[in-house]
Amino acid sequence: MEKDEESFQVTPWKVEGKVDFDRLVELFGTSRIDPPLLARLSKLLGGDLPPALRRGIYYSHRDLPWVLDEYTKGNPFFLYTGRGPSGDVHLGHLLPFELCSFIQQRLGVDLWVQITDDERFLFKRELTLQDTHRLGLENLYDLLAPGFDPRRVHVLFDTRSIRALYPIALEVARRVTFSTARAVFGFSPENNIGSIFYTALQSAPAFLPSRKEGRPIPCLIPCGIDQDPHFRITRDVADPLGYPKPALLHNLLIPGLQGTGKMSSSSDAREGAIYLNDGPKDVQRKLSHAFTGGRATVAEQRKLGAVPEICSIWALWRTQFAEKDAEFDEITRTCRSGELLCGECKGRLIPRVQKFLEQHQERREQVKSWVESTIVEA
Amino acid sequence: MEKDEESFQVTPWKVEGKVDFDRLVELFGTSRIDPPLLARLSKLLGGDLPPALRRGIYYSHRDLPWVLDEYTKGNPFFLYTGRGPSGDVHLGHLLPFELCSFIQQRLGVDLWVQITDDERFLFKRELTLQDTHRLGLENLYDLLAPGFDPRRVHVLFDTRSIRALYPIALEVARRVTFSTARAVFGFSPENNIGSIFYTALQSAPAFLPSRKEGRPIPCLIPCGIDQDPHFRITRDVADPLGYPKPALLHNLLIPGLQGTGKMSSSSDAREGAIYLNDGPKDVQRKLSHAFTGGRATVAEQRKLGAVPEICSIWALWRTQFAEKDAEFDEITRTCRSGELLCGECKGRLIPRVQKFLEQHQERREQVKSWVESTIVEA
Repeated sequence: MEKDEESFQVTPWKVEGKVDFDRLVELFGTSRIDPPLLARLSKLLGGDLPPALRRGIYYSHRDLPWVLDEYTKGNPFFLYTGRGPSGDVHLGHLLPFELCSFIQQRLGVDLWVQITDDERFLFKRELTLQDTHRLGLENLYDLLAPGFDPRRVHVLFDTRSIRALYPIALEVARRVTFSTARAVFGFSPENNIGSIFYTALQSAPAFLPSRKEGRPIPCLIPCGIDQDPHFRITRDVADPLGYPKPALLHNLLIPGLQGTGKMSSSSDAREGAIYLNDGPKDVQRKLSHAFTGGRATVAEQRKLGAVPEICSIWALWRTQFAEKDAEFDEITRTCRSGELLCGECKGRLIPRVQKFLEQHQERREQVKSWVESTIVEA
Repeated sequence: MEKDEESFQVTPWKVEGKVDFDRLVELFGTSRIDPPLLARLSKLLGGDLPPALRRGIYYSHRDLPWVLDEYTKGNPFFLYTGRGPSGDVHLGHLLPFELCSFIQQRLGVDLWVQITDDERFLFKRELTLQDTHRLGLENLYDLLAPGFDPRRVHVLFDTRSIRALYPIALEVARRVTFSTARAVFGFSPENNIGSIFYTALQSAPAFLPSRKEGRPIPCLIPCGIDQDPHFRITRDVADPLGYPKPALLHNLLIPGLQGTGKMSSSSDAREGAIYLNDGPKDVQRKLSHAFTGGRATVAEQRKLGAVPEICSIWALWRTQFAEKDAEFDEITRTCRSGELLCGECKGRLIPRVQKFLEQHQERREQVKSWVESTIVEA
């Protein structure tokens, strides 16, 4: 748990207040992604980077240069990311998978996906294991829709893959005390013993390929910065266990459409995010009502301009809906100058998001035929 | 953890001081096994009970009458017991398995055995998972040697059977807080997070058959009284999870040959117990040097008699080496009167134990052919 007394709190289970992502880099002790590192990434990945990298949505890392060094030396990394299935998947959840898809297409590396149905069960009393299992499978269809090589995807579905994960989780767990878990996650003695143990399960995939192959294989984890606390533990225990420390690539959290926190998947906040199963009318309604950086009146906005940095619509353009930089820059410039009004801006974005979701939903159907074959059960 | 400030402490991981087993019944809140209950058991089991039941080694229980009621009504129980494999098996470890063998032979009920290789790994830093796995398999050969119907034995070898156990362990874990685990086991914040979670795994087998069958199946757990804290948690969560509370049958702990604590399997105490892989010379040496209830001199012993209750040799006669009550009573009487001296008594016991081990070791070899088929891996 990292808490700034005045304003915000970020843990894997709670994001509250107006998050200062720059301050988080200091609090968590991670490194900024700077232009030279981006240039290096671009060279390695063979050309243009995706918008989320070019535009600072992936903004922080741990040991990324080391992973690139190893790759260059002929020791390729694998990708590891995941999801706790407690509801439907929204655009924010898709970010790490989109990046993984891009990297896999360029470099041909393996992707390991963890579906933490156990974790959601332990932290959400209203869910049964049947619920989290069902949601996990539904979520997987969405998360793998960005496009992957099925032969290079390995899904660790916690309750189904536990036999592969458990021995590594035990190794991790033996080296993590309750004191440490309390300090990192803010647990209290009233936390249940499953929730306290769980972080060991989230470490396990980072080490599994090395254990299987019997040699150190670098791991790169693209994830929301809110997941960093888990992987600090992973990195702390890696050395003594004889595994390489996983590297991390952190995205900042996409703001909710209602202007606060991160896009949330809890059911009462359905209006706060674009879900991947939203229909065209949902998109129309949600984006029309979305919080922006606009002014109280048209006149004021024409005069003062709007503020893209606080706008949930601008955040969507930024992720990928303005694929070309020329368009994105133009939107940003005219927003700031007062030329572009919020209604018009929303009107331009809505069909883009609708089209994206339509295409996504088609890709999602195609995933169903191969997803079972990627689930590790041995 | 139950601790009597002045004298002793009993937890699943530590038995210290001179244990007052009567006091333990009060501290733990269990029930004594009394003559009417023994008579009922004897009737159900069809005749003579084994010495460990007749002579109060099984001395305490929880809900035993309920399990017998259910059996009589046509709802048979299953047996569940286990072992944490950290070293070789000694005579004390065999007690619950001997009782299970007897009950299975009389009633044809199923036996579920848990081998907690994970737990030993989490609590013994000097052991690897390879060690605890290897020891678990070696231990199983011993523990199943008393005689079982292989079709009615189901071994839950934690790291191999985790897929069957884990969903139930999650259900349990969600209902147990760190506060509770701390109160029951005496954990501190410096305990590792695996050790804190582990008790959920030990509860799981008590519920697994009910879960598989989709109806409440009574469970009877014969075990050392030091394991009772785990099953208090199991019993506490049973109701809310919709499973029947398991019943327990507790044996007191066989005293070490050096006169303190329980027979221990830690390596530096190898002389303190008869291990099932001891050879005739080991038996000769260990029993010759064993602590007894004798007096400082022969003259004194002839005059005052000896004290069987504190004698490690008498404890062995009591378990099973004096199968017939007539012999056991004669040994007890002549010990107390001073007629029987310790050297003579030991001389009588040594060949009995040697013969038992010889026969055990033959039976153990026979187990090897079928044990793998009993391990649950689905």
